[in-house]
Amino acid sequence: MITTDILIIGAGPTGLFTVFEAGLLKLKCHIIDALPQPGGQLAELYPKKPIFDIPGFPSVMAGELVDNLMEQIKQFQPGFTLNERAETIDKQEDGTFIVTTNKGTKHHANAVAIAGGLGSFEPRKPLIDNISFYEDKGVEYFVRDPELFRDKRIVIAGGGDSALDWSIFLSDVASEVTLIHRRNEFRGALDSVEKVQELKKLGKINLITPAEVTAIIGEERVEGLTITKEGESENITTDYFIPLFGLTPKLGPIANWGLEIEKNAIKVNNALDYQTNIEGIYAIGDVNTYPGKLKLILCGFHEATLMCQSVYNRMNPGKKYVLKYTTVSGVNGFDGTRKEAEKQVVKAIE
Amino acid sequence: MITTDILIIGAGPTGLFTVFEAGLLKLKCHIIDALPQPGGQLAELYPKKPIFDIPGFPSVMAGELVDNLMEQIKQFQPGFTLNERAETIDKQEDGTFIVTTNKGTKHHANAVAIAGGLGSFEPRKPLIDNISFYEDKGVEYFVRDPELFRDKRIVIAGGGDSALDWSIFLSDVASEVTLIHRRNEFRGALDSVEKVQELKKLGKINLITPAEVTAIIGEERVEGLTITKEGESENITTDYFIPLFGLTPKLGPIANWGLEIEKNAIKVNNALDYQTNIEGIYAIGDVNTYPGKLKLILCGFHEATLMCQSVYNRMNPGKKYVLKYTTVSGVNGFDGTRKEAEKQVVKAIE
Repeated sequence: MITTDILIIGAGPTGLFTVFEAGLLKLKCHIIDALPQPGGQLAELYPKKPIFDIPGFPSVMAGELVDNLMEQIKQFQPGFTLNERAETIDKQEDGTFIVTTNKGTKHHANAVAIAGGLGSFEPRKPLIDNISFYEDKGVEYFVRDPELFRDKRIVIAGGGDSALDWSIFLSDVASEVTLIHRRNEFRGALDSVEKVQELKKLGKINLITPAEVTAIIGEERVEGLTITKEGESENITTDYFIPLFGLTPKLGPIANWGLEIEKNAIKVNNALDYQTNIEGIYAIGDVNTYPGKLKLILCGFHEATLMCQSVYNRMNPGKKYVLKYTTVSGVNGFDGTRKEAEKQVVKAIE
Repeated sequence: MITTDILIIGAGPTGLFTVFEAGLLKLKCHIIDALPQPGGQLAELYPKKPIFDIPGFPSVMAGELVDNLMEQIKQFQPGFTLNERAETIDKQEDGTFIVTTNKGTKHHANAVAIAGGLGSFEPRKPLIDNISFYEDKGVEYFVRDPELFRDKRIVIAGGGDSALDWSIFLSDVASEVTLIHRRNEFRGALDSVEKVQELKKLGKINLITPAEVTAIIGEERVEGLTITKEGESENITTDYFIPLFGLTPKLGPIANWGLEIEKNAIKVNNALDYQTNIEGIYAIGDVNTYPGKLKLILCGFHEATLMCQSVYNRMNPGKKYVLKYTTVSGVNGFDGTRKEAEKQVVKAIE
C-alpha cells in the first residue's frame, strides 16, 4: 500500500504543480497517471509545440514546461504510479481514501485531487477482430521504451505526427521499419514529412500507402500482418505492430465514483476550494467545471493552490498557517535542501 | 482623454498579465501606476530577489519576471500613465467610467480592473517641517532618472538596500555623493555593504553616521541641509536631497470609491468573475479578498483571466467566444504580429 497526504490523479501540469504548493505546506503527494511519463497531454501530444499563455513565458515548448515543473517539484520528492489508471475509490471510516488502479496498486491518502485533464488518454484502436489478444504480445499502442524494438522488425500504422516521428526515431533502432497509412498524404510538421521521404529513399523506412492492416497473424504473439492495398491483400512478417491512431480522452472509471458530473466534467465549489460533492475529493484543472470556468493551464495552477490550502486546513484544524510569498519564507525541500533569497546583513561601515 | 477597453490600476504582475489575456479577446488595455516604472513591488522593492512559486519557474528574479511579462504583452501595445495615482472615478450613464489621476489625467474605459496590490506605494518621508515645499525642488523620494543628478552634489539618507544601491550607482554620476544614516550599521545585501565601504575608502562616497538631516536650507529650492550628529549640528551645501526610507502601501483614494472593503482589501465575487459590488469594476490580485483568498502572484494571474472573459462577455452580449489554448489558436498582436505553433502540412510521400 502506497501512503501519502494528497493522492493526485493525473500528471499533467496542474497535477505536477500541486506537488509544489502541497510541499510548501509540508504535505506529501503521490501521482497516478495512465500515460507512461509525467506531463499529460503536454508530454504525450505536443511536447514540441509552443504555449503562449503561461504567465511569464512569452513562449514555452510544452515539453520544456513539463521539465521545468518537474525541476520545481523535485525538492518535494513526489511518488509516481505511471502506466496505471485509477479505477476504484473507497472512503474509509476515518475520512481517508483508498484508490486502486486497473493493475491492483493500492494508494491510501488523506485527500484526493483529481487533475485528470480531459480524462485518461486511451489509444484509438484499429478495428481488427482479435487485436486485444495480441496486446502486450507484439501490439503496442505507445512507444514506452524504444529499446524494446532494438533489432526487431516493426510495422507502424498511422498518418500523423506520432507515426511520422516514431518511424524516424525507430529507423535507427529497429532492424526494419514499415510505415502503413490508408492515404498517400501524411499530416504533420513539414520537417517530419520531409525526413520520412528521405529515409524512404535511403531504404531505411519501407512505406506502404494507401493501405491498411486488416488482420494479425500469429499463434501466441504477433508473427505477421495482413496488409490490404487497393483491394489486394498480402501477408508480411513482423515482430511488432504499433498502431498510432491518436488518443481519445475518457473520463473513464472516475465517472462512477459518485461525483456530480456535468458535460463530462466534475462539478466543484469554485467559491472556496474546488472540492467536489464528496468531502476530501477535489477536482482541479481541465477536468472540473463551475460558472465561468476556463480550461487553461494557468487556471489549474490557481485551483491547485487553493485546494492544497484547503487540504492543509482539513488535516490541521485550528492551525492558521497559510501560503505566503516564497521570496520571504524560502522553500524547504523534503530532501533537506533549502531555496532562499540571499540574506540581508546588518553591518557597520567604518 | 485616454480611451481604452480595460483601465488597469496597478502595473504589478497581475496588472501586466491582464493585458495579455485581454489582448487574446481583442480588448485594449491602459495601465495607471503611481511608481515610475512597471512591475509594482517586484520592480521597486525586490527586483534582484528570487521568487520560487511562479509555476514553471523553479526560481525567477522578480525583475526578470517583470521583463518577461512586458515581453509577453508587448504585442498588445498597452498604454501607461506612470508616476500618477488614480484619484477619482465617475460612472457614466452608459455604464462606462472616467478615472482621473492626481495630476488630472483623464481615462475613459468600459471596465476598470483594480490590480493595486497592497496599495499605491508612498514614500516614507522624513519628519522635516517644510519638506513638502521642496518636493520636486531638490527633494526626490525616488531616483526616476539618474541623469537628473549628473555632475550634481547629492545627499542620500537611509540605511537599507535602496540607499546603499543608489549611493553606489550615483557615485559614478553625481559630482559628490553623501550618504547619511542614523546608525553606523546598514541593512542590505553583503555585496552592497562591502561596495559602499570600498567607495568610502576611495573617497567616492562621503559617509556621515550616526546622523540625521534635521533641516532643509534654501529660498526657492534645496541649497543645503542641516545635519545633526551626536547632538551637534552643521550645515552642508547640496543640490539634491534624496531620502530613501522605504515605501508604505496605501489603498489611498480607491478606499473612497464606494467599494465594499474588508481588512484593507476589496471584496469581490470569487464565485464568478472577481467583480466588486459596483458593476464594471473588478479587483484582482493582492488587492482583493474573498473566502479562501491567498495573496499569491499566480492567483492574480487566474483572477485577471476570468475577469477579462467577464469584461468581454459584458461588452459583447450574445457572443460566445471564450479563451482557448493558444497552442491551437495562436496569438494575434495589435501590432500586426502573429505568434503560432508551426503549421502542420498535409503532404504525400512518394
